[in-house]
Amino acid sequence: MTDLARALGVSQATVSNAFNRPDQLSPDLRQRILAAAREAGYPGPDPLASTFRRGRTGAVGFIVHEPLNYLFEDAAARLTMAGVARACAEQGSSLVLVPRAEPGQPDIVSSALVDGFVAFCDPLEPERRELLRARRLPVVGLDAPVAEGQPYVGIDDRAAARSAATHLVGLGHRRFGVISFALGPGSSPGIAAAGLAAATAYVANRARLDGYRDGLAPALDAGGTTVVVSAAGVQERDGAAAAAALLALPTPPTAILAMSDRLALGAIRAAVAQGFAVPDDLSVVGFDDIPEAATAAPPLTTVRQPHTAKGIEAVNLLLRDDRPSNPVLLTTELVVRGSTAPVR
Amino acid sequence: MTDLARALGVSQATVSNAFNRPDQLSPDLRQRILAAAREAGYPGPDPLASTFRRGRTGAVGFIVHEPLNYLFEDAAARLTMAGVARACAEQGSSLVLVPRAEPGQPDIVSSALVDGFVAFCDPLEPERRELLRARRLPVVGLDAPVAEGQPYVGIDDRAAARSAATHLVGLGHRRFGVISFALGPGSSPGIAAAGLAAATAYVANRARLDGYRDGLAPALDAGGTTVVVSAAGVQERDGAAAAAALLALPTPPTAILAMSDRLALGAIRAAVAQGFAVPDDLSVVGFDDIPEAATAAPPLTTVRQPHTAKGIEAVNLLLRDDRPSNPVLLTTELVVRGSTAPVR
Repeated sequence: MTDLARALGVSQATVSNAFNRPDQLSPDLRQRILAAAREAGYPGPDPLASTFRRGRTGAVGFIVHEPLNYLFEDAAARLTMAGVARACAEQGSSLVLVPRAEPGQPDIVSSALVDGFVAFCDPLEPERRELLRARRLPVVGLDAPVAEGQPYVGIDDRAAARSAATHLVGLGHRRFGVISFALGPGSSPGIAAAGLAAATAYVANRARLDGYRDGLAPALDAGGTTVVVSAAGVQERDGAAAAAALLALPTPPTAILAMSDRLALGAIRAAVAQGFAVPDDLSVVGFDDIPEAATAAPPLTTVRQPHTAKGIEAVNLLLRDDRPSNPVLLTTELVVRGSTAPVR
Repeated sequence: MTDLARALGVSQATVSNAFNRPDQLSPDLRQRILAAAREAGYPGPDPLASTFRRGRTGAVGFIVHEPLNYLFEDAAARLTMAGVARACAEQGSSLVLVPRAEPGQPDIVSSALVDGFVAFCDPLEPERRELLRARRLPVVGLDAPVAEGQPYVGIDDRAAARSAATHLVGLGHRRFGVISFALGPGSSPGIAAAGLAAATAYVANRARLDGYRDGLAPALDAGGTTVVVSAAGVQERDGAAAAAALLALPTPPTAILAMSDRLALGAIRAAVAQGFAVPDDLSVVGFDDIPEAATAAPPLTTVRQPHTAKGIEAVNLLLRDDRPSNPVLLTTELVVRGSTAPVR
């Protein structure tokens, strides 16, 4: 590069700009430099060398518990990722999606060329947490901290869940079913013997079960009942299977609280298939407010999460120099639609 | 690292494995090494230094004409990206989404730490093509080559478009409307005076217009007519506006060919709003077969693209040592549903 700059009578910075910052010099000069570089066989500044010099990659890493394609397929994850992508673009960072390690392969978390990570995993596997800690890079959690006391962006899951439960109690319901996400990595799906006090490995699950209990308390204190079913996965079919278990009880619930819209939509499908009218025989409340919630039949009552804002905030928090260690909690809102009605 | 290895009586490779390949040593030994490293204040192998040594980043770059969030929002793009993500994970590569340059900022294409790029842009802006060429990294196009003779993965757009047109001719239609993507970066939307021979800057557009002409030829030779409208964008509202222009003609078409399902769904919405029954008064054929096509009212007749397979193939082609320079064209299929019917 030195030779090239000297031959052209320009500074090294100008040669570098010809490759990296076209707007910093005239089109004419830029063309002259690029032509001379081509002739001299000079490929432009080496990004690795200059990154190494700067010690900054200009890239935001992103890790997720699920396979990478989940980020493009799941309705709620997509909204969050649209926010993550938008914030990266605004900050001039690329977005590095880091897959899980294939069996027997090294975990790319250890080698990904990034300035920090957004971690969309509740919980982060202990192995990965260890590898991540060894990187000594900033990490911001999405929905949950990667470790106690670490910064994260999420919602007040307990308050959000409480608002859904309070809504059902206000409609006069006394027999409730809860469709929970899986309670732990190896937990078996089905009815949880401990009900709302079920042990769970996941921070957000814990908070939502507690919130449901808070909201249902007035009804439960007055002799109401709750049965908690842990879903086998996050798909609609998992919600359908969980609802089928609830509706097969000797005294089935008149209202169901589901931890996601996807599970709730599956629950409604199963209920209708078994001859329950929603909301006449059964009220169902979701969680998330994915776009489909508003157009479903009946339209789903749910807790709206600011998915896209969460993604934006997580990236902005990661790239700030003064990261607060307390969580950034965004506002949720109960959206009452057609899937809930007074108990008959 | 040398000191640490010596102090523990193990090889440097073993220390490195403790950080990067946990499965290569016993959990006990690994814990001992990590504990000693923590105590010694050794953060683990520096990913930048080792990448620099290897000259490989283990990352696939991805560039797209639209803002990054489009990849998580557009129905067809999402399916393609799910394939890209899956292939990256299978190959043990991270996926680096590179945003467009903000005004006055350097284009990250010049500095992204990747081993090659998948380019999802038709056409690639000349500026970016120049920067990309300067990187001297492998590039695989998605849907179109980044430059004449460069490898890409796509479909036979001309044959696919022809199959849609032939279907309409077979139903007896003689008056056609075509809703095209924008014809060029600065082109104004609306009726294209040159019809199917309209000039366009985009490879896929050109091929689809040619394919429509091939398929419509028997009807046009027999006195049929075609009006081509270029849409203002890729959203449903753009399809609706284009259809409105077609249906406002003195003799409106009885059949519309749209270059995407999104545009086709907008066209149906506009037609129904103006009192046209679909398919009784107006047949509409889309392109893509996004999930919504099958559940729309009426279900959309369309050309099915193998979106996810395209994404997988593009990554696999990029990471192959022996990249063929001829395009990899995947198969499409006309899916006949309820939005097309014999002319009345």
